[in-house]
Amino acid sequence: MLFAVRMNVDIPRDFDPEVRADLVAREKAYCQELQRSGEWVHIWRCVGQYANISVFDVAGNEAMHRILWSLPLFPYMTVEVTPLAQHPSDLAAG
Amino acid sequence: MLFAVRMNVDIPRDFDPEVRADLVAREKAYCQELQRSGEWVHIWRCVGQYANISVFDVAGNEAMHRILWSLPLFPYMTVEVTPLAQHPSDLAAG
Amino acid sequence: MLFAVRMNVDIPRDFDPEVRADLVAREKAYCQELQRSGEWVHIWRCVGQYANISVFDVAGNEAMHRILWSLPLFPYMTVEVTPLAQHPSDLAAG
Amino acid sequence: MLFAVRMNVDIPRDFDPEVRADLVAREKAYCQELQRSGEWVHIWRCVGQYANISVFDVAGNEAMHRILWSLPLFPYMTVEVTPLAQHPSDLAAG
Amino acid sequence: MLFAVRMNVDIPRDFDPEVRADLVAREKAYCQELQRSGEWVHIWRCVGQYANISVFDVAGNEAMHRILWSLPLFPYMTVEVTPLAQHPSDLAAG
Amino acid sequence: MLFAVRMNVDIPRDFDPEVRADLVAREKAYCQELQRSGEWVHIWRCVGQYANISVFDVAGNEAMHRILWSLPLFPYMTVEVTPLAQHPSDLAAG
Amino acid sequence: MLFAVRMNVDIPRDFDPEVRADLVAREKAYCQELQRSGEWVHIWRCVGQYANISVFDVAGNEAMHRILWSLPLFPYMTVEVTPLAQHPSDLAAG
Amino acid sequence: MLFAVRMNVDIPRDFDPEVRADLVAREKAYCQELQRSGEWVHIWRCVGQYANISVFDVAGNEAMHRILWSLPLFPYMTVEVTPLAQHPSDLAAG
Amino acid sequence: MLFAVRMNVDIPRDFDPEVRADLVAREKAYCQELQRSGEWVHIWRCVGQYANISVFDVAGNEAMHRILWSLPLFPYMTVEVTPLAQHPSDLAAG
Amino acid sequence: MLFAVRMNVDIPRDFDPEVRADLVAREKAYCQELQRSGEWVHIWRCVGQYANISVFDVAGNEAMHRILWSLPLFPYMTVEVTPLAQHPSDLAAG
Repeated sequence: MLFAVRMNVDIPRDFDPEVRADLVAREKAYCQELQRSGEWVHIWRCVGQYANISVFDVAGNEAMHRILWSLPLFPYMTVEVTPLAQHPSDLAAG
Repeated sequence: MLFAVRMNVDIPRDFDPEVRADLVAREKAYCQELQRSGEWVHIWRCVGQYANISVFDVAGNEAMHRILWSLPLFPYMTVEVTPLAQHPSDLAAG
Repeated sequence: MLFAVRMNVDIPRDFDPEVRADLVAREKAYCQELQRSGEWVHIWRCVGQYANISVFDVAGNEAMHRILWSLPLFPYMTVEVTPLAQHPSDLAAG
Repeated sequence: MLFAVRMNVDIPRDFDPEVRADLVAREKAYCQELQRSGEWVHIWRCVGQYANISVFDVAGNEAMHRILWSLPLFPYMTVEVTPLAQHPSDLAAG
Repeated sequence: MLFAVRMNVDIPRDFDPEVRADLVAREKAYCQELQRSGEWVHIWRCVGQYANISVFDVAGNEAMHRILWSLPLFPYMTVEVTPLAQHPSDLAAG
Repeated sequence: MLFAVRMNVDIPRDFDPEVRADLVAREKAYCQELQRSGEWVHIWRCVGQYANISVFDVAGNEAMHRILWSLPLFPYMTVEVTPLAQHPSDLAAG
Repeated sequence: MLFAVRMNVDIPRDFDPEVRADLVAREKAYCQELQRSGEWVHIWRCVGQYANISVFDVAGNEAMHRILWSLPLFPYMTVEVTPLAQHPSDLAAG
Repeated sequence: MLFAVRMNVDIPRDFDPEVRADLVAREKAYCQELQRSGEWVHIWRCVGQYANISVFDVAGNEAMHRILWSLPLFPYMTVEVTPLAQHPSDLAAG
Repeated sequence: MLFAVRMNVDIPRDFDPEVRADLVAREKAYCQELQRSGEWVHIWRCVGQYANISVFDVAGNEAMHRILWSLPLFPYMTVEVTPLAQHPSDLAAG
Repeated sequence: MLFAVRMNVDIPRDFDPEVRADLVAREKAYCQELQRSGEWVHIWRCVGQYANISVFDVAGNEAMHRILWSLPLFPYMTVEVTPLAQHPSDLAAG
């Protein structure tokens, strides 16, 4: 089941640089682990923004929530979730 | 070069059904032609909306505009364009 | 899988009363059929609005979209879809 | 009398973890007590959000206000209240 | 039980003047009948707007909805409903 | 001359409890004094909000501003002012 | 008593040109009559907009409403009313 | 004196094609005439939108308004005007 | 050349009272100096708001920016600038 | 490839003046270096705002992102990016 997710990141500007670097590193590791498992299908940077547009392929709403809630950067994010369905014009729809 | 595009469709409700069917058919043909050419990379239906989220891979801004402007449904759409770049957490970023 | 859906209805005011009555009757029949099948779990009227808040329990995003897209009043609605997960404070969460 | 309530939670990120844990625990206890009394009828997590959609069944506006105002997390919430009435398509409407 | 309601009226400008006059007259009669019954407690014109702010005292959500839904001008209104409770600073709160 | 005023209160959450209690007490005293003088005609709590909807009857714009500006909680409020006139459907309009 | 008023005009584009010209002429006459009576103190065109920002000096809310409600273009306007008071930095404040 | 202007065009979709073509041709001629006179300094198409971002260099507010008001497409546009000044980082600022 | 400017002031609430008083005094002096020079033509307090609506008569965009940028309270303000032109209904337009 | 970018700057008001001066100086140097390289084609100050509207001519989305992300003031900015294409009315379009 597919979801488009836009994440806007807003890490406090007076954060300790080490804490921040650690946080960002853990976010990256977490993200890549989910890419390898096939759940985090796409991630793109929005040009000029500390933000990404991602596509997830997960078992359902519960899985989607668990993944987002566990993002190391979750407390510093604004998240928008759009459930997706197959589009009738998609070639893959046959 | 990648762009995320959200298209919200609003065909007037009192449209002649035949004109409407023709319009929708031409939209689908146009969309699938661009999928085959590799420019319209993804298209998903937003659940519960007459809308889609798409990803395009095109030569640049001029190409992106030409493609959207030529959509048979363009006069009935609200379009949002987000230029994308590679995300540093993307596995493909190596 | 649960979804909260808010539907705001806006039937054109100059609609033929018979067409309108038929449309509303078909909407009601469709809604009650889905209540009987267990997919449309709740429907409440928003006080002072031609709108409802509903809860659906469906197989997934594809099912959710199909149900909403097929609403007789769909062309006259603005629809907001919120995917739901179990809340940790819900008694049913054990 | 029914109300739909959406609560968005925003606990300051630099909160003492113990104070925070205590706060969240008290919120949960309070919520479950009201579920048991039959006033807090539903609570669902919004996927990807520190937010819930709830339905309350209370004696009236005064009771609804007292319950929300007393939420341990109230000072950290944005709350939206929608009064509900029975929907004419609801099977229970007979 | 009290509710504050703001009603913004937007009667189509090309309406037949007689139909319009009749509609406005029926609205006024309905409004005054509810003032006499004690349910429509206050009605004020918003300066420079085709809009009013009203206060209702009704049995509950069902009654509030029925009253608003039956307004002759309801199909031409945007309605905002705010449930009210007694304010602790109100002298009447003792 | 009548004005509807909505006040949303947002006292900083890390305020000294005593300072806060004193502030709230002074707000209440000020509010009740103006109720007694007949200028603060109505005050209602908005259900589920740290907010009120009030109606004032004052000599004019200058008086209205002076009253609001002097509210002990003014620096912690967002205030919306709507000038009111008599509604032609008001029974009191004769 | 002073009010700032912003009026955005939106005359239907398919209006009969003669009806439109007459409407605009009556608006201008009405406006100039109120300038001469000293109630419509200022009127400025907003650059690039079919809109104006005006300042009125009137007896009170009732007068302000009557003037705006009687504008020949009122049914084609969106109106924003801001009650004004003397500013403490105004030289005229002495 | 410089102004940035964003123009969003919304020509009614049921317009007579000839009237529309004539309108668009007159808009283009008008635009190019002002480019030649040096007043319409830049015009860019916004990708995926029936919209442009333009920069004007004119004598002042009166001139800016006259130019925009006279656009053949003005009745079908939403216009946003931003007055500009020299930026201290501009190399041309010396 | 005329501009309407709305300034919303938001001085941090934990400011040192002396620093604040000095800031406000310098703002007032600056404002009155520009009133005397004829550039700050009008200043009105918005009722119930820490805000003003002002009208400036300046040489052009550069002058307008310099004046606003130099306001002692500028770092604590949100500013909205509307360039103005003579209105055809203005009696002064002859 | 062209992009219009609006940057709104919001440097914390309690910043150390030296740190701030250094930041602003580095921003200016960076901006001028990109003007010299031909990538930062235009920069204008928005009147009355700590904001600019800029136009960039870059190789593509990746370059555009890299430039914005590296702005010394980037962590203190809200950035809006609009991809541009040649306008058919542009004289340069031949």
